[in-house]
Amino acid sequence: MNSKKKFAVVLAGSGVYDGSEIHEATLALYAISKNGGEYEIFAPNIDQYHVINHITGEEMAEKRNVLVEAARIARGKIKDLKEFDANNYDAILFPGGFGVAKNLCTFAFKGPDCDVNPDVETALKAMHDAGKPIGALCIAPALIVKVLGKVEVTIGQDAVTAEAITSLGATHMNTGHGEIVFDKENKIVTTPCYMLDATIAQIGEGAENVVKTLMDL
Amino acid sequence: MNSKKKFAVVLAGSGVYDGSEIHEATLALYAISKNGGEYEIFAPNIDQYHVINHITGEEMAEKRNVLVEAARIARGKIKDLKEFDANNYDAILFPGGFGVAKNLCTFAFKGPDCDVNPDVETALKAMHDAGKPIGALCIAPALIVKVLGKVEVTIGQDAVTAEAITSLGATHMNTGHGEIVFDKENKIVTTPCYMLDATIAQIGEGAENVVKTLMDL
Repeated sequence: MNSKKKFAVVLAGSGVYDGSEIHEATLALYAISKNGGEYEIFAPNIDQYHVINHITGEEMAEKRNVLVEAARIARGKIKDLKEFDANNYDAILFPGGFGVAKNLCTFAFKGPDCDVNPDVETALKAMHDAGKPIGALCIAPALIVKVLGKVEVTIGQDAVTAEAITSLGATHMNTGHGEIVFDKENKIVTTPCYMLDATIAQIGEGAENVVKTLMDL
Repeated sequence: MNSKKKFAVVLAGSGVYDGSEIHEATLALYAISKNGGEYEIFAPNIDQYHVINHITGEEMAEKRNVLVEAARIARGKIKDLKEFDANNYDAILFPGGFGVAKNLCTFAFKGPDCDVNPDVETALKAMHDAGKPIGALCIAPALIVKVLGKVEVTIGQDAVTAEAITSLGATHMNTGHGEIVFDKENKIVTTPCYMLDATIAQIGEGAENVVKTLMDL
């Protein structure tokens, strides 16, 4: 019997300002592996919204692809999110980073009026409809709320983001470092990570708390 | 009294095939933070040797800068390696990835006849001359050996790489997942990480074993 829990981890590029936050993504994969789970990594095959120089914060005059850049975190073992089949996974997990709010949806620009990438929306709804658990770190809960509506999540303590989330019909709970909000009815587990001014050790704690909770569902 | 051990972590870009291996770099930072240490991150301000598409393994027709890309792992908090001052750090640590053997030195192309980036060489020698400990993961021990010569390291079990290392006057010890080689005389701690076919949990174990050993020196 193979009782290993299998996670689908959805990335949004590679780098906090235009892709997936690297520490959150890596420490989520680490928590899955360390606690006896398995993972496959996905990303949408689309251009990044833009490319940010992570030293200056300025936009760079180039194009990068979300799937190709996310493959850096995945060490090449990554699939186009179009190929995602909810039947093959026990849980789905979204690390944070601005890429979630720029590439997977447009929350960074349009707030609650944002659009969601269709492959992301399809994957999320398929897991939710199948009654399977969903995890989200940092800003990723905003994406979950945009797709699923009346759920309970945390993005930490940022009032503006929390207000955007509640305007979509969801409930927001303030949390501190490493703490999770667990919406039992919807099987959604969220934690603030770098939405707070955190150390990387605190990121690991939050990621592990989310992963362990998802594993027990 | 601030007794926190302060690490300098030297990166080579962001991504296993042309930069720093992201899991090794992240889990090294995590181990430092979790065990009560501090870190500052450095990289040389030079062009990458090349840019690799991490899905296909093919070279991409673009240029990227090692310092700018490494800033993705560092969340923007990174310094040009030219600014490194050995007086300010208790230990120096090199995660692995092909970038170490392509950008920090040219071991990937020239083996034992490789050239070493002058800023890397200066930083390494300054720490060694000051009697301060040095850590290296994955392929990075080859760089240490090229600069410091008669030391004792591990890169895992790859015979060709081990032979290149011994041809430079160093001693190579075979190791398994998470194991370290500790050269007490030279205060050098190494572990194979992804030089073996490892899980990310095993990378975390190796990184933590190196960091804890460095902290006790």
